[in-house]
Amino acid sequence: MRYAIIGTGAIGGYYGAKLVRAGRDVHFLLHSDYEYVRQHGLRIESCDGDFTLPHVNAYRRAADMPACDVVIVGMKNVNNHMLPDLVRPVLKPGGIVLLIQNGIGVEADMQKALPEAQLAAGLAFICSAKAGPGLIRHQCYGSINIGNYSCRDRELFDRLLEDLQDASIKAAEVDYATARWRKAVWNMPFNGMTVALDTRTDLLLKNPATRHLIREQMMEVVGAAQALGVRGLDEKFVDKMIADTLTMTPYSPSMKLDYDNGRPMEIYYLYTRPIEEARKAGFSMPRLAMLEAELRFKQETSGISPWEKHYKG
Amino acid sequence: MRYAIIGTGAIGGYYGAKLVRAGRDVHFLLHSDYEYVRQHGLRIESCDGDFTLPHVNAYRRAADMPACDVVIVGMKNVNNHMLPDLVRPVLKPGGIVLLIQNGIGVEADMQKALPEAQLAAGLAFICSAKAGPGLIRHQCYGSINIGNYSCRDRELFDRLLEDLQDASIKAAEVDYATARWRKAVWNMPFNGMTVALDTRTDLLLKNPATRHLIREQMMEVVGAAQALGVRGLDEKFVDKMIADTLTMTPYSPSMKLDYDNGRPMEIYYLYTRPIEEARKAGFSMPRLAMLEAELRFKQETSGISPWEKHYKG
Repeated sequence: MRYAIIGTGAIGGYYGAKLVRAGRDVHFLLHSDYEYVRQHGLRIESCDGDFTLPHVNAYRRAADMPACDVVIVGMKNVNNHMLPDLVRPVLKPGGIVLLIQNGIGVEADMQKALPEAQLAAGLAFICSAKAGPGLIRHQCYGSINIGNYSCRDRELFDRLLEDLQDASIKAAEVDYATARWRKAVWNMPFNGMTVALDTRTDLLLKNPATRHLIREQMMEVVGAAQALGVRGLDEKFVDKMIADTLTMTPYSPSMKLDYDNGRPMEIYYLYTRPIEEARKAGFSMPRLAMLEAELRFKQETSGISPWEKHYKG
Repeated sequence: MRYAIIGTGAIGGYYGAKLVRAGRDVHFLLHSDYEYVRQHGLRIESCDGDFTLPHVNAYRRAADMPACDVVIVGMKNVNNHMLPDLVRPVLKPGGIVLLIQNGIGVEADMQKALPEAQLAAGLAFICSAKAGPGLIRHQCYGSINIGNYSCRDRELFDRLLEDLQDASIKAAEVDYATARWRKAVWNMPFNGMTVALDTRTDLLLKNPATRHLIREQMMEVVGAAQALGVRGLDEKFVDKMIADTLTMTPYSPSMKLDYDNGRPMEIYYLYTRPIEEARKAGFSMPRLAMLEAELRFKQETSGISPWEKHYKG
C-alpha cells in the first residue's frame, strides 16, 4: 500500500506521519515547507508523545510523485479547483482518494472531475495545528470517521481502515451522507457565528438570544438533511450537540482562525453549497443563508485575498 | 393650545423650538440640560437658518408643568416604561399625545397605560442631533407624518396639524399602520445590519450578498404587514426603498449611532415587538429574528447599560 498526502499541514501532516511511523510507504506533497522538510523531515508534538521523522519522501510537484493506492487530501477546501490536477498524476488506477475536508459537496465535485476515482470522506475529530515549518502540534483527540462515497473495491477500503488503525489512529466506517450532515449541524452555526459576532462557542451558548438562534440554525441543517433523505438527524441530535458543546473547552472553530489570520474562509462548501442543495430539495435555510451573506460581506470588506475559488463545473 | 415637550433632544427640542418661534405656548421637560436651558434657553443651528430662544419654559419634573392640550414625546423608546408617569401629570383631559418614536407597538403600550389618552404617531423625516447643552443641530429635512392612532377629537387633531404647519414644519396626515410599517421596511434591515456588520447603508447595498439579504429582510417586513392586514406595502415599495437608499448620502442609522456611543439600542420596539406581532398573525420573520439575536448579543457583551426596558403590561 502506497500513500500520498496532498496538503501536509495540521491534518495531512499528522495522519501521514503516523502512517510513516507505522511503517507505511508515504509520499508528501509540500508547498512552502518543501525545502525545510526535505532537509529536516517532519516533527509531531503530540499529547500522545512527540516524535520526529528525519527523512520523509517530500515533493514539490504532484507530477514527480509515484502512483499511490490511497491519496489523502488534507488541504482546506478553498482551493479545490486545483485539486483534480494535484490528485490525477498521483492516483493509481483503482485507487482511493480520502478527502479529509469540511463541508457538503466536496466529493460530488471531485467525482465530476475524476469520474473513475473511488472516493471516501474523512471526518477528522482532532485538535491540531501547523506550528512551524515541518512542525505539527497535536493537542488532543485524533479519531477519524470514514464514509464510503464511491469505493467499489471493498478490500482496498478495508485495508485503508486497517492501516489507519495499525498506525494507532481511531478509524471507523460511518454512513457517508449522515456523517457529512451531522458534522454540518455543528459546523454551520458555530463556524460562522463565531466570525459574525467575533466571539467563542461558549459565549454564544451563554447568551439566551444566540443560544436560541444557534438551536434554530441547527434545526435548519436537520431539516435540510431530512429534505434530502439523509437519515440519523433529528431534534434529539441537536440537543446532544448543544449539550456536548457546553462541556467543551471554549473553542475557536477553524473558520474563526482563518478569518482572524486573514485567510480565506470555507464559505462555499460550508454554506453556499448545502444551502443550494437544500433549496433544490425544496427546503429553505434563511438563517444560515443570512449568515452566509454576513460572512461574504466580512470577507470581502476585510480584503482577504485570494477570494475562495471553487469548481465552476 | 398649550404644548408640552417630553424629551428635549434632537427631535423634541427641534419641533418644540419651531413652535415657540411661531408663538405657541410650549413647555419643555429637561433632564441633564435643565440648568443650562433655564439660564440660556435653546439654540437651533439649522440648514433653514439658525435661531436662539433666550427664555423657554423649562422644567425638571413633569409634576411642575401645566396641563397641556398636546404632549409631544421626543424621547428614545428605550425607557418607555417611565413614559406614562411623565405624560400623566402634563396631559389635559381630552388632550393628544404625539409619539415621535421609532418602531412598532409604542402607541398600543401607551394606550394600555393611559386608556383615556388620545394618541397619535409622529414619523419624523429629519437629520438632527443634540450637539451640546441646549443646542440642536438640524442638518436637513424636517417633515413629519402624523398617523391618528386613537384621536376622537378631530378638531384638536387638525389644530395640531395646523400649528405645526404654521411653524413652517411640513406636517401631513397619513394612515397610522401603513406609515409605521412602511418605516419599519427601512428601519429593521438597515438599523440592525449597520450595527451587526459595523458598516454603512451604501456598503451594505454595494455588496451583492448583503444587498440580496437586505431585500429579503425588507420582504419579511412586507409579509408581516400583509399578514397583519396593513395596506400599502408590497414588492414595489421594497424596490423603491432600495433605489431611494442608493441615492442617499452614506448614512449611519440611529441604532448605529447609539451602539457606537455606548447607548442602549431600541431593540424591543424595532425588532422584538414587530416580530412577535407577526408571529401571532402566523407569519415568521427568521432573518430579522436572527438579526435581533445578534443585536442582543452585541449589546450584552459590549456592556451597554442600562439594559433597554419596556412595559411588562
